[in-house]
Amino acid sequence: MAAPLPVSPLAPEAFPELPDIAGVRFATASAGVKYTDRTDVMLAELQPGTAIAGVFTRSKTRSAPVLDCQAKLGGDNSQGAAILVNSGNSNAFTGHYGQTSVEEITTAVAARVNVPVERVFTASTGVIGEPLPHERIIAQIDKLAAALEPGQVEAAAQAIMTTDTFAKGAGATLMVGGKEVRIAGIAKGSGMVAPDMATMLVYIFTDAVCEQSALQTLLSSLNDTSFNAITVDSDTSTSDSLLLCATGASGVDVAGNADFAAALNLVMLDLAHQVVRDGEGATKFVEIAVTGAVSDQEAKTHAMAIANSPLVKTAIAGEDPNWGRVVMAIGKSGAEADRDLLTISFGEVLVAEKGWVSSNYREELGVAEMKKSEITLSVDLGLGNGAATVWTCDLTHQYITINADYRS
Amino acid sequence: MAAPLPVSPLAPEAFPELPDIAGVRFATASAGVKYTDRTDVMLAELQPGTAIAGVFTRSKTRSAPVLDCQAKLGGDNSQGAAILVNSGNSNAFTGHYGQTSVEEITTAVAARVNVPVERVFTASTGVIGEPLPHERIIAQIDKLAAALEPGQVEAAAQAIMTTDTFAKGAGATLMVGGKEVRIAGIAKGSGMVAPDMATMLVYIFTDAVCEQSALQTLLSSLNDTSFNAITVDSDTSTSDSLLLCATGASGVDVAGNADFAAALNLVMLDLAHQVVRDGEGATKFVEIAVTGAVSDQEAKTHAMAIANSPLVKTAIAGEDPNWGRVVMAIGKSGAEADRDLLTISFGEVLVAEKGWVSSNYREELGVAEMKKSEITLSVDLGLGNGAATVWTCDLTHQYITINADYRS
Repeated sequence: MAAPLPVSPLAPEAFPELPDIAGVRFATASAGVKYTDRTDVMLAELQPGTAIAGVFTRSKTRSAPVLDCQAKLGGDNSQGAAILVNSGNSNAFTGHYGQTSVEEITTAVAARVNVPVERVFTASTGVIGEPLPHERIIAQIDKLAAALEPGQVEAAAQAIMTTDTFAKGAGATLMVGGKEVRIAGIAKGSGMVAPDMATMLVYIFTDAVCEQSALQTLLSSLNDTSFNAITVDSDTSTSDSLLLCATGASGVDVAGNADFAAALNLVMLDLAHQVVRDGEGATKFVEIAVTGAVSDQEAKTHAMAIANSPLVKTAIAGEDPNWGRVVMAIGKSGAEADRDLLTISFGEVLVAEKGWVSSNYREELGVAEMKKSEITLSVDLGLGNGAATVWTCDLTHQYITINADYRS
Repeated sequence: MAAPLPVSPLAPEAFPELPDIAGVRFATASAGVKYTDRTDVMLAELQPGTAIAGVFTRSKTRSAPVLDCQAKLGGDNSQGAAILVNSGNSNAFTGHYGQTSVEEITTAVAARVNVPVERVFTASTGVIGEPLPHERIIAQIDKLAAALEPGQVEAAAQAIMTTDTFAKGAGATLMVGGKEVRIAGIAKGSGMVAPDMATMLVYIFTDAVCEQSALQTLLSSLNDTSFNAITVDSDTSTSDSLLLCATGASGVDVAGNADFAAALNLVMLDLAHQVVRDGEGATKFVEIAVTGAVSDQEAKTHAMAIANSPLVKTAIAGEDPNWGRVVMAIGKSGAEADRDLLTISFGEVLVAEKGWVSSNYREELGVAEMKKSEITLSVDLGLGNGAATVWTCDLTHQYITINADYRS
């Protein structure tokens, strides 16, 4: 794009203080893949024994790096591992050349970081369909390997940004059996963000000990209600990847530990919400909570229909408490609904009940709620016990401006 | 809205000359339901024996008038019938009061036009969730009944507009067995337009003779590839209704007649395309043709995923030949696809084949195609013989402007 985008009004005040994770080191570089005057490659080195779990886009046109990562998950982790991510080019829909680029990069990283090529995971994010100039990335690998050090997680978060207007991080420190365990994660994503897939690019590191299959089960489970419960624009990336790396450096085994799962869940939710807060053009952060559905899955179908409706999202942008569009979205979702049992609230304001506007509702109450920058929209279907919560943002002129001009 | 919207740049030059249909008379009035300084109610009177077929929104929150029409289809048509449509208020999500409004209006029309209440069909279009001031409509019925006359079809099309920027009509005259048969149709719709439902508001009249169940079968079949194959914004109205009325005045029975079906199909396609051409904020009319899918249904799933993608639609608005976003939409659609078998063309320009950009493709060719106001986007999946064509428009700033300000 010509000019840098303004930072989202929903951005956190600052990048958080994240705990250092023993067993992982980071480096970043400027390879000039597409962007100039900024870093666009990040390398993470992981110590031998690190367990890596991952979830990825379910797109049928997913990128070469995604296919390569999926094939490598769950392999022998007795040696070290590495993650290399570039921004500016997604190496997606690049035919056999895309696979060649992945092989060239992973081979170069393996040789220089001294890990097996089967333990080098890559991701690429940016424009689709243009050949990745992988030689520019490979030219930086010596420098990256030499620069690896702990505590560079914010720089790593910056290097993987595309249309993101702020770097995204979240972390936690907890005690398990009297010993400290740390979690630190970074994420990128602001457009082409929708669920029924894994997520954007997200890397979460912990010094916990966890066997790979248990780590994978935990990650997949928590993903359903965090990254798979957000949407910016209903469009699903071909590159979305989330890796969770447990270095084991703390010596604390967290398999089956509820406190660790809860802490990890909060980190994942925090990062997922930051992606929504940086949704292209977003001015409102919107939580959509659906209850009373016939199942959790049906509740999520309704919630996503509301979250993805352009008419609901433009109404929110216009600060219009237009609950009629919420009714419309429920009606079209395909999941069970009875018009005359619906209850709809905006924040604490009861807007509609029993199939019609609530007798106590006054427009100024709804308008006041819509003027907030964080809005909760609750729908009870009155049918059963199914519930789901998803998060989205509004649809504004800035989304059009970004996406009518940007080749992504 | 504050100011009238500019007429869509994709609008036809003028409302077409439509043939008069013997057996139907129209009248319009200004009831002030919501709009001022324009007509907002239209009444059509149909002669005894008129067969009426209909298709309606499949929304689970559909409006009271839709439910009432659905219950009345297929009834005894030995007496006359009437259709009353208002714009400005959709009488949707108005609880039991909504049903009361329908009853009050249909009873008043039946009494004044002298038809059974079971043969009075209504539709309401406009804002959702506000009580319909039906007394304002009823106050106009004497005047409407007195004003009924043939040939007022353009006035009828104008009275049912909401955010439409032009009145929509299409017609045909054909010879069946040496005798003339006429078709004339009108439509409204520009936002909250998406398929997997019936359509916007559409009324088609013919002087053909056709038994009701045959008429219904024909209508439902043609609807799948016309009104159910267009989308403006993926949002499904709670009020969409299409009625096809065969007065029989020509004395020509068209049951099973292929020429009549073909002529009716063209009228329906023409009206459906006009709805897309008046899509809120539209500057491009886009045909999306998918071939080589495993089935026609899967082809339509892909075509609709492309047509509904905000990123594809904003790229088209920006005249960006961004075929990467087309690949993305195919990947997320849920239907079968093999990335490395895809062929994509913009107009006559082959853009991508075998999973990558075509070796002959040059960006200036794609850009030249995207600068046109009518764009055809073709995708061959290389998997089977399934095919589908759908139509949509681009997503522009004007869509946001209209929908962030307009309570619909």
